[in-house]
Amino acid sequence: MRRSVDRLKSDVVSICRAYGMPAADAEMIADVLVTTDMRGVHSHGVVRLARYLDCICAGGIKPAATPVTLNESANSIMASADGGLGIPASVKVMRRLLDKAADNAIAIATISHSDHYGAAGYYAMMAAERGFVGFSMSNTCPLVAPAGGRAAAIGNNPFAYAAPGRRHRAVLFDVCMSRVAAGKLVIAAEAGKKIPTDWILTKDGKATDDPNEIWHDAVMLPFAEHKGYGFATMVETMTGVLAMSGMLSGVHSWNTRPGSDANTGHCFVVVNPAFFGGEDAFRDRIDAMVDELKKCPAADGVDEVLYPGELEWRREAAALRDGIELPEASEKELARAAAMAATHSAL
Amino acid sequence: MRRSVDRLKSDVVSICRAYGMPAADAEMIADVLVTTDMRGVHSHGVVRLARYLDCICAGGIKPAATPVTLNESANSIMASADGGLGIPASVKVMRRLLDKAADNAIAIATISHSDHYGAAGYYAMMAAERGFVGFSMSNTCPLVAPAGGRAAAIGNNPFAYAAPGRRHRAVLFDVCMSRVAAGKLVIAAEAGKKIPTDWILTKDGKATDDPNEIWHDAVMLPFAEHKGYGFATMVETMTGVLAMSGMLSGVHSWNTRPGSDANTGHCFVVVNPAFFGGEDAFRDRIDAMVDELKKCPAADGVDEVLYPGELEWRREAAALRDGIELPEASEKELARAAAMAATHSAL
Repeated sequence: MRRSVDRLKSDVVSICRAYGMPAADAEMIADVLVTTDMRGVHSHGVVRLARYLDCICAGGIKPAATPVTLNESANSIMASADGGLGIPASVKVMRRLLDKAADNAIAIATISHSDHYGAAGYYAMMAAERGFVGFSMSNTCPLVAPAGGRAAAIGNNPFAYAAPGRRHRAVLFDVCMSRVAAGKLVIAAEAGKKIPTDWILTKDGKATDDPNEIWHDAVMLPFAEHKGYGFATMVETMTGVLAMSGMLSGVHSWNTRPGSDANTGHCFVVVNPAFFGGEDAFRDRIDAMVDELKKCPAADGVDEVLYPGELEWRREAAALRDGIELPEASEKELARAAAMAATHSAL
Repeated sequence: MRRSVDRLKSDVVSICRAYGMPAADAEMIADVLVTTDMRGVHSHGVVRLARYLDCICAGGIKPAATPVTLNESANSIMASADGGLGIPASVKVMRRLLDKAADNAIAIATISHSDHYGAAGYYAMMAAERGFVGFSMSNTCPLVAPAGGRAAAIGNNPFAYAAPGRRHRAVLFDVCMSRVAAGKLVIAAEAGKKIPTDWILTKDGKATDDPNEIWHDAVMLPFAEHKGYGFATMVETMTGVLAMSGMLSGVHSWNTRPGSDANTGHCFVVVNPAFFGGEDAFRDRIDAMVDELKKCPAADGVDEVLYPGELEWRREAAALRDGIELPEASEKELARAAAMAATHSAL
């Protein structure tokens, strides 16, 4: 089933409203989730909505919390999401941070007492859309083994940055720290295929070539061994440690315990090119960098070298033109969310 | 041959002084190179000294240049190394940046018209030693293929961060963007071993299992495919693009063309925990993070889980206690530098 972007957003808004979220917050959630689906990152799009509602139902997320500023300076904000949803807290704090970045070469914000904030890249792009370089990161509950370890001890901590161009909209890079995304394991499992033995460990820390272990608390291995581990630790430092949120096992993603919160931490950094060569020069130089990278001859079997974000812009343009075709898992979870909302409204 | 740290530093200072470097600059170079050897990162230690001298001899690096401030604000410095050595320019700019960070939640500096700055991690640690979180990055001449490409189109752009603990000195992470360091290829070549076909390409872009291709302009492949490529592009954005230095093919590392410079770009970012939970809380939380990571059970065949930097601190302590045993390549290059200095002084 193909939906228009506007229709999908308004469906998400209605569902969120039924669950007691303020109108502005519901719009933010719809924009973050649907934009992410438009960019083809379905793992972080509307497929997540029903799970947010599960947490709200269980009393593990407050649907109408307002972020609290704990400390503030000319170029920094230290905030708490106060046990609310990660998306509206992040959009609100990021908007204030962008205003600070207008007068500063660099500015930073942290958020504690938050939960899942959707795709990290969305917030980095909020900065790029204002002509700034943006960085976005979050910790998660432990999912990944440290290099040399055999248990999940650190989050799959997403990290993203974006930088604006002129002819090329922006460079956008958004990754997590595991060797492969859980989605790839699901695809291999459904296809009945074996996987390389360095992708995951069983929950007991044993090597495996069976992708079905993903359903049995498999431990993700970090990308490029100590490199993925080191970047995961960097994100944990800027979120858990600096933001004073939960750290490592102190983060309870998708929290369903009433009276507590996930205590996820986020961190955002914005750099203003006006303090270096100016926004115009910066955009031109991003274009020049992208043009030169794309001139690199492609490897055998590859059509062309892409810049980070290029695929996402193509998909977003197609979604705006032709509507969005959601994968089955997203359709199912969206239908579940709609059914939950219908019941909830009737209460 | 085992040398004391002090003796090795004073030898490096003498060589630098013979080449016309100011005393303070020579001390900086000695400290950066020897500290890096102490931490076991011999690829970026005194082995590089003779190559700096080669560039100076050829007229491609000015031995006594002074960094120039191009733009400055309360929390930023945009500088040029003016065609001088990367190490003294970076130490001087970083010192000024740390003073700015004392009054700011976050501060940023860029340097253009620089050359090789040694190990990225040294500058990140300058921040950690002041109780701050430090980030350090540099571009290089093209050495790595973009994901999907088959030619060297982007630098092996080093990236480092460091964050101070209390019982644990600091987390320190310092990486480049290729799958494996050139040193690993050299070791495989010397042992007559084959390498996996996804480490490098021949200079014509063909897959190879022959490590000897490293001597024939082999193209490095990025770690974790698009992830390494994306991080390399991030560093290029913060150095080449933002610093207004050379970008991609515009960087001429180890420049030997008289009247020009390498135009390498660096970027440093410093975060001050005083604006979040305070330095004491930050250090305690870094300790808590490290303790929890180290409690993770080790994989089969691994003694213990390490935190990023732990090996480096052990090696540094051993070097201070027992002196430094340099590898053969470092001894050879150090002897070459000493011989060059003796000749140069005699001129």
